[in-house]
Amino acid sequence: MSAPSDSEKDSRPRCVLLVACRDQPGIVAALSSLVYDGGGNIVDLQQHTDPVDGAFFQRIEFELDGFRLDRDELRHRLAPVIERFEMACQVRYTDQAARIAILASREPHCLHDLLTRWRSGELPADVRVVISNHPDHAGVATRFDVDYRHCPVTPETRGEQERLVSSLLADADVDLVVLARYMQILSADFVSAWPGRIINIHHSFLPAFQGARPYHQAHGRGVKLIGVTAHYVTADLDEGPIIDQDVTRVSHRDDVEALRRRGRDLEVIVLARAVRAHLEHRVLIHGNRTVVFDG
Amino acid sequence: MSAPSDSEKDSRPRCVLLVACRDQPGIVAALSSLVYDGGGNIVDLQQHTDPVDGAFFQRIEFELDGFRLDRDELRHRLAPVIERFEMACQVRYTDQAARIAILASREPHCLHDLLTRWRSGELPADVRVVISNHPDHAGVATRFDVDYRHCPVTPETRGEQERLVSSLLADADVDLVVLARYMQILSADFVSAWPGRIINIHHSFLPAFQGARPYHQAHGRGVKLIGVTAHYVTADLDEGPIIDQDVTRVSHRDDVEALRRRGRDLEVIVLARAVRAHLEHRVLIHGNRTVVFDG
Amino acid sequence: MSAPSDSEKDSRPRCVLLVACRDQPGIVAALSSLVYDGGGNIVDLQQHTDPVDGAFFQRIEFELDGFRLDRDELRHRLAPVIERFEMACQVRYTDQAARIAILASREPHCLHDLLTRWRSGELPADVRVVISNHPDHAGVATRFDVDYRHCPVTPETRGEQERLVSSLLADADVDLVVLARYMQILSADFVSAWPGRIINIHHSFLPAFQGARPYHQAHGRGVKLIGVTAHYVTADLDEGPIIDQDVTRVSHRDDVEALRRRGRDLEVIVLARAVRAHLEHRVLIHGNRTVVFDG
Amino acid sequence: MSAPSDSEKDSRPRCVLLVACRDQPGIVAALSSLVYDGGGNIVDLQQHTDPVDGAFFQRIEFELDGFRLDRDELRHRLAPVIERFEMACQVRYTDQAARIAILASREPHCLHDLLTRWRSGELPADVRVVISNHPDHAGVATRFDVDYRHCPVTPETRGEQERLVSSLLADADVDLVVLARYMQILSADFVSAWPGRIINIHHSFLPAFQGARPYHQAHGRGVKLIGVTAHYVTADLDEGPIIDQDVTRVSHRDDVEALRRRGRDLEVIVLARAVRAHLEHRVLIHGNRTVVFDG
Repeated sequence: MSAPSDSEKDSRPRCVLLVACRDQPGIVAALSSLVYDGGGNIVDLQQHTDPVDGAFFQRIEFELDGFRLDRDELRHRLAPVIERFEMACQVRYTDQAARIAILASREPHCLHDLLTRWRSGELPADVRVVISNHPDHAGVATRFDVDYRHCPVTPETRGEQERLVSSLLADADVDLVVLARYMQILSADFVSAWPGRIINIHHSFLPAFQGARPYHQAHGRGVKLIGVTAHYVTADLDEGPIIDQDVTRVSHRDDVEALRRRGRDLEVIVLARAVRAHLEHRVLIHGNRTVVFDG
Repeated sequence: MSAPSDSEKDSRPRCVLLVACRDQPGIVAALSSLVYDGGGNIVDLQQHTDPVDGAFFQRIEFELDGFRLDRDELRHRLAPVIERFEMACQVRYTDQAARIAILASREPHCLHDLLTRWRSGELPADVRVVISNHPDHAGVATRFDVDYRHCPVTPETRGEQERLVSSLLADADVDLVVLARYMQILSADFVSAWPGRIINIHHSFLPAFQGARPYHQAHGRGVKLIGVTAHYVTADLDEGPIIDQDVTRVSHRDDVEALRRRGRDLEVIVLARAVRAHLEHRVLIHGNRTVVFDG
Repeated sequence: MSAPSDSEKDSRPRCVLLVACRDQPGIVAALSSLVYDGGGNIVDLQQHTDPVDGAFFQRIEFELDGFRLDRDELRHRLAPVIERFEMACQVRYTDQAARIAILASREPHCLHDLLTRWRSGELPADVRVVISNHPDHAGVATRFDVDYRHCPVTPETRGEQERLVSSLLADADVDLVVLARYMQILSADFVSAWPGRIINIHHSFLPAFQGARPYHQAHGRGVKLIGVTAHYVTADLDEGPIIDQDVTRVSHRDDVEALRRRGRDLEVIVLARAVRAHLEHRVLIHGNRTVVFDG
Repeated sequence: MSAPSDSEKDSRPRCVLLVACRDQPGIVAALSSLVYDGGGNIVDLQQHTDPVDGAFFQRIEFELDGFRLDRDELRHRLAPVIERFEMACQVRYTDQAARIAILASREPHCLHDLLTRWRSGELPADVRVVISNHPDHAGVATRFDVDYRHCPVTPETRGEQERLVSSLLADADVDLVVLARYMQILSADFVSAWPGRIINIHHSFLPAFQGARPYHQAHGRGVKLIGVTAHYVTADLDEGPIIDQDVTRVSHRDDVEALRRRGRDLEVIVLARAVRAHLEHRVLIHGNRTVVFDG
């Protein structure tokens, strides 16, 4: 029963290129030749072309074993390809874990779940800090050996508290902010400081039931399925690019409390899937939509 | 491989009581005693109490074999129980198939599917007429040996066409109107003439994407699941009580046409499930929601 | 955001009657009259009749507020009804939490999940002891403030270890044993001491992939969905009555480790659903199958 | 509402290369350069590497608009690449519809569904003949304007009938044989004549419930989900490579007839999905498993 953990599996480092540009012939040939000439072996290649606007997206993952270019040289060789195709190109290495912060309010389930997955090696990340407007999760954070910052907030101290949170994130130098049922609305300034780097879990099947108390809204409308949505946060509340969604069946027997209970299991799983997709460099933002390559 | 059809299974007639009233002690005892005293055997009993508003709903199905009360006598015996508990009580018999009309526009898939299920004995109904604003389905109707009425419509003839449809429904004396992708908006007058007796299939996961072109809306929003909703039609477009919903997973690879194709399979199944639930007397309307007992 | 917990909701005590007998007229009338005469209000009533063997099953839940019979009197009044219909009848009270033991081996996810749900008030139970053949979970048990017993086992000490486990269960006087990924095979003697009172989670969609290493088996067979099964344990390994099952989609991209990771999320949820159904007195065993009433 | 059909969408011809070989550096570069040098634009590229046995699979789809090599020249240019990497390489063109035969027994639902999808342009195929051991579907075939051959069979005439079927398939020169609930067991000789070119729908979640009467088996075992499996047919009954599977939830309320009814909706959809995947050149066989690229 001694299972090799996911993290062991990833121990041989790989490089991931995440590319977006206008569709045109020759992109695959140019990038795959560059990798091949350097001695790399491509282990995953996925692409997507939007037939409407002609946008092109590609993910190339190749092994660094036997790859003769160091990270500077690769950057150097990529430069003319990027220029030729007018690409946006992210270069990621699987041995560089993303630094993440988790923000939570009172409800603990998403926070606990992410910490558990992180400690079991399921999430390729380094959780630097947990921030909450409630003191409740300090014990949990201690248990998982992660820094916990309590940033209480009142209607009057909203701006001040957000500045404190911002400075904590800056101190921790994080790459990704995960809102694990963090119920405070973020200002446009805050959001614009982290473009495509804040993931939220909303407890409805967006765009249905935007805003507050979605399980109450769902109960009132009498839906037969409830859902949850993981999305990047933008300045428009609950309208950012969707990364993942899922639903579960409910019935007239389920009151609001039962919806909340059923929903919790969904929230946990969908948020974890979305965070994992982001951390594995499988998500590209395309306007208000996402391209999520298979994991 | 000679499968007994569903209709054979139902050949021994049964009675279904569908009850709604305020929750209070004694309802089950009163109704079950009445059935027992008449010599009936209850084969299904389901109930639901809404804890918020105290509404009570019950479905009792019992075998008529050995039941000594004829249909008039049953009605007579029920009267004091109905009065005592201030019930709304529907009395249905499984040997009395509901008469239904199917309305369709250009897309054929829901229409074909309902006719196929009907002819295979899966729907306990008598399809009296198919009405369409397009001439295309006449051949299909002939094949299934059902009356077909072509009622063309233009923006100018809307009211007139609806009156024609109304009179055809009246002539056919139908119990239920099924909108099988019928794309004409019905007037408030039309709808109010058939309260709780018009079922529509909307090609989105309501309340998301109400109104026109939901698959375009879904594509534009970048959702990761698309859905469909079967609901009773009320005067408020796409806002009637929901009977059933379902979803299917989509991805960035799916353009609008692919969503439409994936959605068709859902539309067919969810509409058939909702119509079947209604025809089996398993649906009660509760404000703008439904109680759907298990089938 | 102050959610009333599930346990608060259940704070007004109720009685549940779980009945099994041969189908015959008058059962509903007899039981519902008994409840009504005592002043009880039925809040849930579900029944099932097996058309093949004529077995009848019923669950009646009624409020004890205003019910004039105490627990002895109810037992007394039920006796003649039980005799008349030759019933098996369980009488449960929602204010008497079941005492449960959780057995686990190395993998922690199901254990952690059950303890978390228990402490959040989601499971109406009293977890008396956690038993494991590994020492790893002692810290977790301490955190959740529950007794932890480490019962190591070797191929030579199997019988002895099982006797130790048995005596711990007896000491804790438990009503239900939950195997939360406990990988030791139980003897027929052990199993027969807890008929219908041991729930196991098997990591395959039974009856596919019985026995050891089901994710390896699933990968080898190239299935496109993997599943899990919660079932009562009988003397026949992996063949006891199924309480709940669920599946998730996989693809050629998923190696055994990925199946294991995807499976874990299913195991947690399906085991929790099955345990909850049992604890809410919604499960009846019918030969090698179960009747699971809606929750 | 005038929807462009799927077939219109595909009207600009494309070429698909389906490649299998041992994993090694340079494959992507070689193939993508070949396409690029010919003036082609790659619109889809998916690959899979099996980490256990080092097998490599790739699908490249490129537009023929602007591609300067004709079909002979492409074959010619591919030859050295195929030799260098010891590839199996299928070259498909989307303007060459596969010729298919559908075999059915008594149950009509899968046959009707495939014919309907074909006629609506959803399946890129040319249905050449429908063959059945029952006379029942002749009218349907006429309606859909497809050749119908009735090949009755008795236990004594099995071999003879199969030879007749074989000769009809040869006459129709089909590329793919679809068993749409065809209940006759095929001989090893027949199967070996169509390697990877016979698709069957089995009405269980294989490997559970292999063999006859799977819905009866499922009911007897008391499963809480039933499933269906589309697979390539091999000499081992119900053991060929799985293309697609799906399940639906059932309960103690569902007798065998209800399982059959619920199962029919699954059979139709899963068979259609599998046939579509095959016809879109998205399936590669890998031992007893399949690689199914996204559609």
